Amino acid sequence: MSFACDLLIINGTILTEPGLKAPLPDGYVAIQSDTITAVGAMAELPPQTSARQTIDARGDLVMPGLVNGHCHAAMTLFRGLADDLPLMDWLQKHIFPAEARFVSKEMAYWCSKLAAAEMILSGTTTVADSYFLEEAAAKAFHDSGMRAIVAQGIIDFPAPGVPDPAKNIEAAEAFIKTCQEQGRKRITPAIFCHSPYTCSAKTLRFAKTLAAEQTCKFFIHLAETHHEVKQIHEQHGMSPVQYLHNLHLLDHNTVAVHCVHLSDEDISILKHSATAVITCPESNMKLASGIAPIPKMLAAGISLGLGSDGCASNNDLDLFGEMDSLAKLHKVANLDPTVMPASQALRLATSGGAEALGLGESTGRLAPGLKADCIILNLDAPHLTPFHHHDLLVYGAKGSDVRTSIIDGVVVMHERQILAFDQAETMAHVRKLATALHSR
Amino acid sequence: MSFACDLLIINGTILTEPGLKAPLPDGYVAIQSDTITAVGAMAELPPQTSARQTIDARGDLVMPGLVNGHCHAAMTLFRGLADDLPLMDWLQKHIFPAEARFVSKEMAYWCSKLAAAEMILSGTTTVADSYFLEEAAAKAFHDSGMRAIVAQGIIDFPAPGVPDPAKNIEAAEAFIKTCQEQGRKRITPAIFCHSPYTCSAKTLRFAKTLAAEQTCKFFIHLAETHHEVKQIHEQHGMSPVQYLHNLHLLDHNTVAVHCVHLSDEDISILKHSATAVITCPESNMKLASGIAPIPKMLAAGISLGLGSDGCASNNDLDLFGEMDSLAKLHKVANLDPTVMPASQALRLATSGGAEALGLGESTGRLAPGLKADCIILNLDAPHLTPFHHHDLLVYGAKGSDVRTSIIDGVVVMHERQILAFDQAETMAHVRKLATALHSR
Repeated sequence: MSFACDLLIINGTILTEPGLKAPLPDGYVAIQSDTITAVGAMAELPPQTSARQTIDARGDLVMPGLVNGHCHAAMTLFRGLADDLPLMDWLQKHIFPAEARFVSKEMAYWCSKLAAAEMILSGTTTVADSYFLEEAAAKAFHDSGMRAIVAQGIIDFPAPGVPDPAKNIEAAEAFIKTCQEQGRKRITPAIFCHSPYTCSAKTLRFAKTLAAEQTCKFFIHLAETHHEVKQIHEQHGMSPVQYLHNLHLLDHNTVAVHCVHLSDEDISILKHSATAVITCPESNMKLASGIAPIPKMLAAGISLGLGSDGCASNNDLDLFGEMDSLAKLHKVANLDPTVMPASQALRLATSGGAEALGLGESTGRLAPGLKADCIILNLDAPHLTPFHHHDLLVYGAKGSDVRTSIIDGVVVMHERQILAFDQAETMAHVRKLATALHSR
Repeated sequence: MSFACDLLIINGTILTEPGLKAPLPDGYVAIQSDTITAVGAMAELPPQTSARQTIDARGDLVMPGLVNGHCHAAMTLFRGLADDLPLMDWLQKHIFPAEARFVSKEMAYWCSKLAAAEMILSGTTTVADSYFLEEAAAKAFHDSGMRAIVAQGIIDFPAPGVPDPAKNIEAAEAFIKTCQEQGRKRITPAIFCHSPYTCSAKTLRFAKTLAAEQTCKFFIHLAETHHEVKQIHEQHGMSPVQYLHNLHLLDHNTVAVHCVHLSDEDISILKHSATAVITCPESNMKLASGIAPIPKMLAAGISLGLGSDGCASNNDLDLFGEMDSLAKLHKVANLDPTVMPASQALRLATSGGAEALGLGESTGRLAPGLKADCIILNLDAPHLTPFHHHDLLVYGAKGSDVRTSIIDGVVVMHERQILAFDQAETMAHVRKLATALHSR
């Protein structure tokens, strides 16, 4: 038996399903076009195998690319613009005014592309992005080689690209049509309602109907802060989760982001409606939103993924750091070191996140038939020595340990150099945009 | 006016006192032998300045090397050996048996040197280390070019190098004498009593007397867990802090590590006794020990530094990540995003830590007369773009962004390559030792 492939990764430790399966100590991954065709032990690699390109991963670890379940990529422009402020000051005096003045198609394109550079360099190969002018982000992710769900933002306030909020549903519909017409590989359109407190019931229902008609995912920030819970309770006499449930917004195509403040009943509703949840621990820590009841959600069997949130509130997009924070935060919050083990963090950042986003049959695992999204980590570093166990990927590895990122069968980054697009050009464009922020 | 120096760093953004002073946007640092001789604006650099070596830091950020206030460097061998376990299982089934079998002089030397490699590569130039067989660590830090306080461990159990606990004070005294005789530059001996629950009152008093006689720092783990607080209360009817206070162990030469569980009275005692505190947030999170009342300690004016703790409980020594965790953890714990701003985290990891360790006149700041311990960060990376404010050093920068580390005027690392010693040899030795762990 022999076979030919386009790309062959050999001699690596292969982690096919992080957190779920033990690693293959000396294995290979074969890729034909955009798809994984075989994964196995080197001893079983057919001797006549030929490949157009071979990557020797001896001493390295090969695993699925990470899945960032929630991001506002264009907000890289506001990275560290205003830190350590009270939430309302931060939003109303810094972020909202900066967004009103500086978000444009050009900004969204270059700043999303910068986010793509950062994600690719730190091992993220799939992102679910939610922002305004999302067609620019779609183009940026397409041009950068990333796999992306791009969700057009809907809010009942004047927003970038949609100055008249009465037209926000119409704009979202146009975005989905354009995105579908473009037919870009790896790019899937979706809808993002900002929150239950910034969108009316009518807007929420129209948006969800649109998403359902187009079989799109429906994203929404949910139960992020005490303030939101209080406000929704005052207005509607129930919790944000119950409120969305009553509006028939919660189902297997809804992705609820944050879910920090949940009652046991809320958790039950999320579970029984098959709503997926994306947790963003670093953003919740930095903005002091609170600590999500992740152990309870896991126990309930809710589909869970991990997200970085936007750069204004984190301030980076490195999911290795996010896994570390996720695992450590819930241990101390529960005063129990067995809570949120490294294996769970790895699962949430790979197959768990992919499933939450409806991409479980495309990415998040290394298996024949799945898209070829994988990363190779260099373990030959003091901070990863010795490497007793792959839990160290959570507690020790950094995004900067990623040597190679492959998306859809294409090597988009190798030896820390982005091959898919011009990183320096992207950074230069964003720096120019950032200079304008300070010359107000 | 002209001057000559050994090493001149030019064209950099200079952060002389992180968290306390605004950066110099375009400056230089001049170093003669082991000492900083001048820091200033490029515009004021005397035109006739000559230097044996010049580093161009254009686009880079120059700041003091970080100060790791608490480490067990030799424990790199146990990095990720056993994660996510109940504390007593972790200690009694994994860490203590591994220590009993595998800690030797050779192990302590190579594993401390590996820790030095990791610290130097991530921007730490000074460490306060506490472990057994500490003479081996002293030699490792000397050979690696680091600045270190080396504290010999004292515990009332058989320990590596001290099989008979009745001789633990004697062994510590011999260690200090040897260390003083060696007269190694940058290496300062000290005493480390493991904790109030593993050392008797007699041992604690003898150890503190020895430290006082030798004008040494006295380190101790204090109020780390609920379990410890309960045990000391049951045995002595008071809190661990009160107990040490009653034994006359708390003064300006005592450094209390962790201090997670403190009453307001405890905080007052620490303040009035001028005891310094080192906080290790990531270790406290991973072991689920709890969240230290850092904002209260800061408000009380306690001298505070930041530590990584050992690799068995973190699992890395990167103080950039530790600053990020420190800043984010206390915000969410207090549900207030203004708590523990980035500037405080930067101060604790530099001048604050140096002062807590009694090294404030030697390191932790860039100023004429201080030892030349400084690091240069490459800001030309997507995750640091744009760089609106140096708070991004806490919320965005990683140890891997450090381009150059200088200790005592010597360039020990440049362009991510360790120059002071053979990193590959060190890693090979530790890997060999690690293999033995698995062939039990």
